[in-house]
Amino acid sequence: MNKKDIVLTGDRPTGPLHLGHFVGSLQQRVTLQEQYKQFVMVADLQALTDNVDNPQKVRDNVLNVVLDYLAVGIDPNKTTIFIQSLIPEISELYLLYMNLVTVNRLKRNPTVKAEIQQRGFGENVTAGFLTYPVHQAADITVVKGTLVPVGEDQLPIIEQANEIIRKFNRIYKTDILPEAKGLVTKMARLPGLDGKAKMSKSLGNAIFLSDSSDEIAKKVMTMYTDPDHVRIEDPGKIEGNTVFTYLDVFDSDKERVQELKDHYQKGGLGDVTVKRYLADVLNGFLDPIRKKRAEFAKDPQAVMDIALNGSDRVKDVAAQTIKEVKEAIGLKYR
Amino acid sequence: MNKKDIVLTGDRPTGPLHLGHFVGSLQQRVTLQEQYKQFVMVADLQALTDNVDNPQKVRDNVLNVVLDYLAVGIDPNKTTIFIQSLIPEISELYLLYMNLVTVNRLKRNPTVKAEIQQRGFGENVTAGFLTYPVHQAADITVVKGTLVPVGEDQLPIIEQANEIIRKFNRIYKTDILPEAKGLVTKMARLPGLDGKAKMSKSLGNAIFLSDSSDEIAKKVMTMYTDPDHVRIEDPGKIEGNTVFTYLDVFDSDKERVQELKDHYQKGGLGDVTVKRYLADVLNGFLDPIRKKRAEFAKDPQAVMDIALNGSDRVKDVAAQTIKEVKEAIGLKYR
Repeated sequence: MNKKDIVLTGDRPTGPLHLGHFVGSLQQRVTLQEQYKQFVMVADLQALTDNVDNPQKVRDNVLNVVLDYLAVGIDPNKTTIFIQSLIPEISELYLLYMNLVTVNRLKRNPTVKAEIQQRGFGENVTAGFLTYPVHQAADITVVKGTLVPVGEDQLPIIEQANEIIRKFNRIYKTDILPEAKGLVTKMARLPGLDGKAKMSKSLGNAIFLSDSSDEIAKKVMTMYTDPDHVRIEDPGKIEGNTVFTYLDVFDSDKERVQELKDHYQKGGLGDVTVKRYLADVLNGFLDPIRKKRAEFAKDPQAVMDIALNGSDRVKDVAAQTIKEVKEAIGLKYR
Repeated sequence: MNKKDIVLTGDRPTGPLHLGHFVGSLQQRVTLQEQYKQFVMVADLQALTDNVDNPQKVRDNVLNVVLDYLAVGIDPNKTTIFIQSLIPEISELYLLYMNLVTVNRLKRNPTVKAEIQQRGFGENVTAGFLTYPVHQAADITVVKGTLVPVGEDQLPIIEQANEIIRKFNRIYKTDILPEAKGLVTKMARLPGLDGKAKMSKSLGNAIFLSDSSDEIAKKVMTMYTDPDHVRIEDPGKIEGNTVFTYLDVFDSDKERVQELKDHYQKGGLGDVTVKRYLADVLNGFLDPIRKKRAEFAKDPQAVMDIALNGSDRVKDVAAQTIKEVKEAIGLKYR
């Protein structure tokens, strides 16, 4: 990592963003934008790969995702927010890169393999889904991204992109495409309300950044704690107790959290009491985010304009990249 | 077929065009341009799918192919000649269509299957090659082509395109993408110099439209005739005798050809004599084409400008198509 690194990251607009996104990536972006040139992409085309018959969901959530970005403090003056489908050069790169990778190599990609299994696609995986790592190689290289924040399980995607980048540079005797480094998020993954390893909209175990304080209170009440902690006076367990995991992450009053933990382990502290406390903590944390979001939401067109202006800036970068790429291949006619 | 049909056809610029192209497609295009709106594409991106490490060959032959088009009478005032890589919308459509087809369906395409075998790709087929029918669906639909001249063996490509088109229209509840009909060329395939079923640059059995009269004379002398016709006085066979196949196609003096056939079958007519006659016929046929080609070749920039102007016209059509496609999907942001 050095000052000249260019960060490329983004989200599939398939729902509003949740606390898992905040912990896993959003807060990191707010930091990264102070040090690096950063591009954040709303990946509408990639969202279509497994929402082909539900494009309205994708379309509707573009605004939601941009609102969430602005609400958490991603600053459009520091970070370029853009919409994937507005950059045709990404599709052009994708098509060119498709010649640099075999079908079998794509099938061996562990991340894609796991996702195909998880989604139950089996033998019916679409060409679009199987080749999405090629699409991501295009996303990264169109802005010449060198630093890509990822979860550990996404590292094979970066490796796949770098294989394509190296092959391109070797075959066309050039160095215009820089390799990308995966920036693995150190922060542990935030579990879902149900205690499952991953918070996710599709699992129905998420707290959204846009949830109201009532929704938060209700959701927190359903949270997974210690199943053996039946009576208030019983001693309870902290390990794997989602309520305390959340307190560790979101309560800045570490002393208070320690007191609660001690009390809970000793016995005499009921789940409902700790949950009410957590709801307050979460609402305290989310309040300024919600307020900022509501403020931006008053003028949806202005929000979209931020993404559209960002896309225009990326178009300039992309035009330069595709020009260099085509010249390297020798496809230059004007 | 009706007057409103739009013809889309083209060639991969991997070498100058030959007599097989003339018989199989070029002469048909000269006829079609009088009846239909016709687009002829120089498929440089598709040529890259199996020439990824030889882009210079592709680049160099773009001019050759356009020269050949003009030489045979494809009229840029009637036919729009364009270069595939100058139309980014084709890549955009390709990427969107990739979600509408499974990897297994592509693997079952008989045309692609045969070509993978023929080229010995086996398990190492690239993603670009396996998915070239999706690319062709994008080529056809970007100009809303409805009539696609093909050889019989290429019909599965049209069927594949139509599956994508129907799926798109069904999912997105629209009818903006018209289905395409394959226009199967009735003319039998011209055999190569060696009597093999197909004339092809890579088989080294081709007579190019740009060959000089000396080259023609030399190539005709190597042609496959009747292997049992050893002495001039022996009777010879006409069937499978490439020299007579060519005379049937290129000599307008059908009476003279019949006399030669009779004489050859009776005995007393030597191969060299018939070959000299064929060389004269071919040179008579190619002379005006060569002259026209040489004339155009004096100003290569003017020739490229024809393809560039055509590409500009296609860009307008393509911009409209991608606008409609994105609106149908719901990806409309401005």
